[in-house]
Amino acid sequence: MKTDDNEKNVVWHHATVTRKRREAQNRHRSVILWFTGLSSAGKSTLAHALEEQLHQEGCRTFVFDGDNVRHGLCKDLGFSEADRHENIRRVGEMAKLFIETGVIALTAFISPFRTDREQVRRLVPEGDFIEVYCKCSLAVCEKRDPKGLYQRARSGEIKHFTGISSPYEIPENPELVVDTETLTLDESVQCVMTFLNEQKIVRFSELS
Amino acid sequence: MKTDDNEKNVVWHHATVTRKRREAQNRHRSVILWFTGLSSAGKSTLAHALEEQLHQEGCRTFVFDGDNVRHGLCKDLGFSEADRHENIRRVGEMAKLFIETGVIALTAFISPFRTDREQVRRLVPEGDFIEVYCKCSLAVCEKRDPKGLYQRARSGEIKHFTGISSPYEIPENPELVVDTETLTLDESVQCVMTFLNEQKIVRFSELS
Repeated sequence: MKTDDNEKNVVWHHATVTRKRREAQNRHRSVILWFTGLSSAGKSTLAHALEEQLHQEGCRTFVFDGDNVRHGLCKDLGFSEADRHENIRRVGEMAKLFIETGVIALTAFISPFRTDREQVRRLVPEGDFIEVYCKCSLAVCEKRDPKGLYQRARSGEIKHFTGISSPYEIPENPELVVDTETLTLDESVQCVMTFLNEQKIVRFSELS
Repeated sequence: MKTDDNEKNVVWHHATVTRKRREAQNRHRSVILWFTGLSSAGKSTLAHALEEQLHQEGCRTFVFDGDNVRHGLCKDLGFSEADRHENIRRVGEMAKLFIETGVIALTAFISPFRTDREQVRRLVPEGDFIEVYCKCSLAVCEKRDPKGLYQRARSGEIKHFTGISSPYEIPENPELVVDTETLTLDESVQCVMTFLNEQKIVRFSELS
């Protein structure tokens, strides 16, 4: 553009469309809902079911999980400890941009290490990272095992499998614990919805 | 969740909130507007000015540029050729997720290599990648040089600087060419707005 035009049009400055304006447009706050828990604890199922509810309420949402991240943004990464850290770092950085966009970012990754989760928490302003612990015992997760992963981990075919050959560090102070072992899916969804309503992140037509 | 509940609730399946439903909610199509051109050609300025207009029209948008990517998602990358390829790859993968979210993703990177841009184009369905060439001669870009980068590149302080010591591969068949050398910023914005309207990506209140 012509230089004089740039100088005249001070209104055309970088980032005039702020997160605050986007949130006002969307009529809800944007946050990261970080689902963590063992494999088969129900993180992804819960995140997608919650997203359906939120969408019906008119919210802007997106679910990140292995399906859309591991084959794309992180396809250069394996499952070594270093690569798993880097995977979570990138998901965190991406989720940060999504909340800048006014979107409720739901992430469904085992994310077994406290340091990784805390690193993501520190990326965003206080209150924007909501750690949701999907609490389900190893015994029950292993019994579900829809993809046969635990079986392959037990046989040694999969190395560094969380809960079997790699630790899962239980969240110490998660914003929310959802007992996915005993609650139905619908009850689990309502549990998060109630939290979002109480925290004034989303105002739901039925709940408020 | 209880297994029987999972089986009963077939409605709670993965990814029930599709891109199509998000686009319907937003009342515009989601695309990638990929701005490419020399440093100081006005990519980022144009992208942000366009975003302001689109936001006022009620669209969901996000601008990716060096500011929010190089310090975050790609902070592990330098400026070697390999790292520049990887930078563009990640931006492309991220932009892909943004269009899945129903957002118009505007990216403002020099992205000097055709192969990189074509790689991003192939990531998404046909018609969703809109290459916008910000056409401005090296002489004019170098004269603008708001950050003194060309000067530092000429002195050899910055290596591999596009246009000076590294090539810029002009787009062969971009969807749109914006002559940012001669157009004012407002004219440049209108040029893209008209294109988006003609392509029925966004229906503008004033233009339609």
